[in-house]
Amino acid sequence: MSLQLVPAPTHLETRPGDGFVFTENTALVAPPGVARYAARLLGLGLDADGDGSDTVELTLGAQPGEAYTLTVDADRIHIDGSTAGLVRGLATLAQLRALAADGAVPALRIEDAPRFARRGLMIDVVRHFFGVPTLRRVIDLMAAYKLNVLHLHLTDDQGWRFESASRPELTERSSATAVGGAAGGYLSAADLAGLTEYAAQRGIEVVGEIDLPGHTNAALHAVPELNAGGAATEVYTGTEVGFSQLTLALPATTGFLTDVIGDLASLTPGPHLHIGGDEVHTMEREEYVEFIEAAAALTAAAGKTPIVWGEGAAADLPEGTLVQLWDTNSDPAPIAAAAQRGVGVILSPAKHVYLDMKYHDEYPLGLDWAGTVGVRDSYDWDPEQYLPGVDPAAIVGVEAALWTETIVTEANLFTMLLPRLAAVAEVAWSAQSDRDWEAFAPRLAAQEPFWGAAGYAHDPDALAPVG
Amino acid sequence: MSLQLVPAPTHLETRPGDGFVFTENTALVAPPGVARYAARLLGLGLDADGDGSDTVELTLGAQPGEAYTLTVDADRIHIDGSTAGLVRGLATLAQLRALAADGAVPALRIEDAPRFARRGLMIDVVRHFFGVPTLRRVIDLMAAYKLNVLHLHLTDDQGWRFESASRPELTERSSATAVGGAAGGYLSAADLAGLTEYAAQRGIEVVGEIDLPGHTNAALHAVPELNAGGAATEVYTGTEVGFSQLTLALPATTGFLTDVIGDLASLTPGPHLHIGGDEVHTMEREEYVEFIEAAAALTAAAGKTPIVWGEGAAADLPEGTLVQLWDTNSDPAPIAAAAQRGVGVILSPAKHVYLDMKYHDEYPLGLDWAGTVGVRDSYDWDPEQYLPGVDPAAIVGVEAALWTETIVTEANLFTMLLPRLAAVAEVAWSAQSDRDWEAFAPRLAAQEPFWGAAGYAHDPDALAPVG
Repeated sequence: MSLQLVPAPTHLETRPGDGFVFTENTALVAPPGVARYAARLLGLGLDADGDGSDTVELTLGAQPGEAYTLTVDADRIHIDGSTAGLVRGLATLAQLRALAADGAVPALRIEDAPRFARRGLMIDVVRHFFGVPTLRRVIDLMAAYKLNVLHLHLTDDQGWRFESASRPELTERSSATAVGGAAGGYLSAADLAGLTEYAAQRGIEVVGEIDLPGHTNAALHAVPELNAGGAATEVYTGTEVGFSQLTLALPATTGFLTDVIGDLASLTPGPHLHIGGDEVHTMEREEYVEFIEAAAALTAAAGKTPIVWGEGAAADLPEGTLVQLWDTNSDPAPIAAAAQRGVGVILSPAKHVYLDMKYHDEYPLGLDWAGTVGVRDSYDWDPEQYLPGVDPAAIVGVEAALWTETIVTEANLFTMLLPRLAAVAEVAWSAQSDRDWEAFAPRLAAQEPFWGAAGYAHDPDALAPVG
Repeated sequence: MSLQLVPAPTHLETRPGDGFVFTENTALVAPPGVARYAARLLGLGLDADGDGSDTVELTLGAQPGEAYTLTVDADRIHIDGSTAGLVRGLATLAQLRALAADGAVPALRIEDAPRFARRGLMIDVVRHFFGVPTLRRVIDLMAAYKLNVLHLHLTDDQGWRFESASRPELTERSSATAVGGAAGGYLSAADLAGLTEYAAQRGIEVVGEIDLPGHTNAALHAVPELNAGGAATEVYTGTEVGFSQLTLALPATTGFLTDVIGDLASLTPGPHLHIGGDEVHTMEREEYVEFIEAAAALTAAAGKTPIVWGEGAAADLPEGTLVQLWDTNSDPAPIAAAAQRGVGVILSPAKHVYLDMKYHDEYPLGLDWAGTVGVRDSYDWDPEQYLPGVDPAAIVGVEAALWTETIVTEANLFTMLLPRLAAVAEVAWSAQSDRDWEAFAPRLAAQEPFWGAAGYAHDPDALAPVG
């Protein structure tokens, strides 16, 4: 058998001798931080002591971050790493087990660690709403491919999708609808508490986004005093962009920003909060920059590190801020300058990782304003080479994005993610020198039974290797 | 009476004594280059000699460019300037005469010259087609407000609107439709010959635009070999942007560009040719820059100076090239860098001069992705202060733009232009120190009878001074 792991691990060496066969007696020995998750993922009973044979043993080691080692012998599987590393090693083990057609995981040793610290997926839950059950299944899928950031696009022109304790009118007035008159919805405080906990168990940070200062019609509809004339805007259910904006000069704006940024900061325990910043066509540069700097300062005051879309690189952002590039044809110069000031870069180039783009011209779902995005487009690029003039050390991550203008059902959603998300996951995790499209295509195809068994909709045609 | 000229002249001094009264005996004395146009504009007979009284006399003087002096005495009106200056002076005289309610043009002396060398209007004849009769009326209106560049957006996803001698299939296959299934059309070689001559008589350069490398579905539909797969795309009648592109690496592309740029260069006698460059979301930066540089080189080889939309500032453009900024929130840095290399800048910031934006939120026509654009928005800005860090000397002009996604009829078109185009004309012509919104609003309102008399549709509500 060949080892069809996705993403490819840093180092894998098979060993002589028999592999490990899971039986009804196989027990799990694991530290508390990961034990329940490991038991559920592998379907094993916990054995507090362990007698050293027929066990899967997880030990807390000194390896940094998400690095882990995984050793398979005939009588024992051993994963060593930090809690985060153990979670990644478990994903590898789950794949090895699923791929072991004859029931035996081959004897081997893996040493593995990620190329990029941040490996994400953005889901737009505004244009069409997706709630907790779908998002938990998204998180499971992300964990299977070692992704570690779920970025939720929570506000936009068409809706406000998280409960704000200090501004309840936002969801009361602006959560019921979605694109084309579809039903809306929102994530309650309890929903987000459960979701962030579920994600944390899988080593995944949930980053919430309040998109500012554009993409804000839902706020302008719910809070009249955010409008220059003091009158609320109408509900918007179309798909145009760029027409709405908050105005820092209005007296109500700063208080509003302080409230909603503070509320979202409380609802998302991770260290980051995304403040948007994309596609603002109604402001002159000076006003835009001033707004982004104010929103970033409020975010820092709420105890979070801000993330902004690529346009925000024009602002003077605090060191440690992350800028998320999306426009394939972005000017690298402002990002290079920001990187020199200590800003990190997340790469989401639309041509490669916007998974709402059609797979090909005839595809029934998706948009094509960034062209079509085949699996090979998602796979065949090097993030460190993407932005000439930007220090490769400043590239902290890669994030796929699924905007949902045309994505209505859960099946739509997973069909756009799979197989492309697995390709992006390997871009983000595996060393460039270990990546090769010809070798990857069959490994990717070998993942399909897993998706079928787990009930993930996916696009089977996209698995056929493309020239 | 007050002198309600638009745009405000550089220097105006009224004089004691009677004004000039046009009678049936008033004769015109003018040099050949401008005589026929002046006679038609003023409705006067030509008097080759002139006896020195009751005459409008135009003399060729040594003043540079479009500068002119205009003197009105009881028995003689005298305009002095180059041919271009005389045309501008005639526009002033036509306004003075139309505004002279009692029939007498007051005695005065005007010394006048433009602030910016290029003062333009772009009309998109692709999304909806407007032919020669409408464009002649547009040219007349431009001349009345001393504009000197008519930029025709001739190609886009929805149609190819000029006859290409070497590629007749472009109009044969891609000119019949427009947005939403509206009837298309195109400008034949004879149409463009007549139109450019008509414009030249009024001191107006016609600049044709072939939008490259995006906005090219009409070409991709008509010329299959421009597509990577060799198959023609479908006709497109929607209003999305950014999805189409030419590909320099395909063997057919350079020959195609050489042909169509050469053909358009022959059809437009002026020194410039616009090669587009906007809203390309399907290319990575390097491919985009390479394409723009190739298209600029082909344009130079065809004997024209290229103009590109703002994104094109990323390319290494020949000295003298003009970059036309449109995105209100543009990063000034690449434009500043290009300006230092000798590139000129045309300002078309959407928030101020995109006359396809709605006048206000409830306006039935137009788009609003750049916000609403009231008359004051069009008027109240200073082009030399617009781009921080860009040498004001690099700002060569201001250009209004009318995209026509929602503009179907000639009445639609002029309603969007008026009154805003007159405001933009003053921004481009008059000194900043002579411009003041409170003073301008009543001057602008005084223009309305002229539009009524000339049959130009306009928005009367927009003339009420806004706060």
